[in-house]
Amino acid sequence: MTSKRPVAGATRRAVLGSAARLAGLASMSGLLGLPLAPPARAQTPAPSDPLSSWSDGPTKQAIIDLVRATTDPGSPNFVAPEDRIATFDLDGTLWVEQPSYTQVVYALDRVPALVKAKPELAGREPFKTVLAGDRAAIAKLSETELETISAATLTGVTVETFRTETNKWLETAQHPRWKRLYTELAYQPTQDVINYLRARGYRTYVVTGSNQDFVRVFAERVYGIPPEQVIGSADATKYSYGADGKPVLTIEPKLLLNNNFSGKPEDIYLIVGRRPFAAFGNSTGDRQMLEYTKAGQGARLAMIVLHDDAEREYAYGPAQGLPDTKVGYFPQSLYDEAKRQGWNVISIKNDWKRVFAFE
Amino acid sequence: MTSKRPVAGATRRAVLGSAARLAGLASMSGLLGLPLAPPARAQTPAPSDPLSSWSDGPTKQAIIDLVRATTDPGSPNFVAPEDRIATFDLDGTLWVEQPSYTQVVYALDRVPALVKAKPELAGREPFKTVLAGDRAAIAKLSETELETISAATLTGVTVETFRTETNKWLETAQHPRWKRLYTELAYQPTQDVINYLRARGYRTYVVTGSNQDFVRVFAERVYGIPPEQVIGSADATKYSYGADGKPVLTIEPKLLLNNNFSGKPEDIYLIVGRRPFAAFGNSTGDRQMLEYTKAGQGARLAMIVLHDDAEREYAYGPAQGLPDTKVGYFPQSLYDEAKRQGWNVISIKNDWKRVFAFE
Repeated sequence: MTSKRPVAGATRRAVLGSAARLAGLASMSGLLGLPLAPPARAQTPAPSDPLSSWSDGPTKQAIIDLVRATTDPGSPNFVAPEDRIATFDLDGTLWVEQPSYTQVVYALDRVPALVKAKPELAGREPFKTVLAGDRAAIAKLSETELETISAATLTGVTVETFRTETNKWLETAQHPRWKRLYTELAYQPTQDVINYLRARGYRTYVVTGSNQDFVRVFAERVYGIPPEQVIGSADATKYSYGADGKPVLTIEPKLLLNNNFSGKPEDIYLIVGRRPFAAFGNSTGDRQMLEYTKAGQGARLAMIVLHDDAEREYAYGPAQGLPDTKVGYFPQSLYDEAKRQGWNVISIKNDWKRVFAFE
Repeated sequence: MTSKRPVAGATRRAVLGSAARLAGLASMSGLLGLPLAPPARAQTPAPSDPLSSWSDGPTKQAIIDLVRATTDPGSPNFVAPEDRIATFDLDGTLWVEQPSYTQVVYALDRVPALVKAKPELAGREPFKTVLAGDRAAIAKLSETELETISAATLTGVTVETFRTETNKWLETAQHPRWKRLYTELAYQPTQDVINYLRARGYRTYVVTGSNQDFVRVFAERVYGIPPEQVIGSADATKYSYGADGKPVLTIEPKLLLNNNFSGKPEDIYLIVGRRPFAAFGNSTGDRQMLEYTKAGQGARLAMIVLHDDAEREYAYGPAQGLPDTKVGYFPQSLYDEAKRQGWNVISIKNDWKRVFAFE
């Protein structure tokens, strides 16, 4: 249930631990009248900080306050361990979503193999545009066209084949900017929050508009989040029998859960049956999940990531003047609502000391 | 996460514990040359039996063998704790399903309140028949008519109201035969299996054709099974705003998951994303879940309860000559398939030493 990815924060904590031990030895030396150990080290015996990738300030403090309020047995807002649920959007909250959602990149990359299997698609749009490899034209594909591509490339296979194919892709596909695997582009600060909450008895869920099967393939390895704690947009499966007579589940091009907007609280109810005490998002698609979380009784935390750091990541928040209506983004109206409803806005520029583990 | 219901088995184990301690004292006395403690007790220092409500024999042994094979680190079929999933049908597997499914009894009992709120339904079938209280006519209602009643009585309310109403009913409604609360009619042997598996690191799921919201209301209290481990037939919910402007989830008369037959493995995949290592059922509606479980690699257990004990419970298995086609029952064809596929048939008469906790 814990992350299998080596987290840089753990190394940092180990180093701090050594410093603290050195400090202890130093003061013993002092008592014995011996010269002090190096003072620079002796002066920083800071206790291990589970949120070390966060800058100190009200945003980081809000997370710590929620954890204290809900897990301290003496707190009036104490929450029983079985009710400690926290939900995290994926794209833009747990990893990079620019220039495209990773699931969309995967779907586009699958098009040549799909056309090989079904040559009649070669001359048909939107597959023709993707095959031609014209980046500008691909960037202009509508949401409906992208959905057509996703429906064609992510379905029609058994759940085992889907897992194998996705894993193969994740092992080699690289992000165009960092030239690193997509799974390396997980944000260290939200991962720190996941680990911190989990250490305090919370169960942490991914609640994403991306395809549930796709996200389940890497969520355990990358975030320490097991498949049953991944809620995403989900296609129906069909139970039938393979050539060997054994039962198989095949993914159908039939959307069962559209896990965006109102779909997020509805699906959290369907799958978890409990209201979260903390929710993290970054776009209009998370609005209802944040609102639903914050409307619960007792201490609740709703946080929304504002992408305002073009240098270390991307900047596409309200400061960049995007239209309010763009789906999946953070328009001014969402910023205003966050302020009105008491959500905490996370500024990547100001609140995140470090963005990625590899930094 | 543990059952809050006092389980008679726990008391029995405590008694056995005392006997074992007495036996220990007895042999010490023997060493000291003192007279032995009462021999009857000294001869039964049986170790605490987690399946004490089961008669010894191959059926009980199959459960023990599965647990040993999957949880002993030295076993070739050892299963990592996170993959230890066991699924249990509800009606007829975890509690009594005769003369009607409890959820159906609840839906019928809700009809007067429904008609009070919507008087136009009074003269309309099937509500008219239910209102008239003619038991023979009610017993003859078709499945479609019962679904109409369930759709009307179990939806159109917020999820909080649904929970309150269901709880109120469960606190007073009695089974016609035993004159006990329905929740008291949980089977002790399958509860023993749930506790036994859970103590060995398994997560135990209810996977039922009954309404998911309904079952979640009591599953934690009665079986120690939390809401996120209840998978049932589920209606969609709709996110909207109450009079106070706060968000509410209202249950809609729109079936989202039909958790019977193929729906069981499909929904297990949707919600858990892992194949069970053990599955328990009792009717045609469980066939695919048992088949899917048994078809997995390594050690797998598929068990099917045969209701063959009219004296202590009910008898409606193949021996009673029901037609093969009756849905939700255990026809001869299912019995034959169980034998062919290596499932274990549980005979209530022969395998269950005790049926209910109150016995």
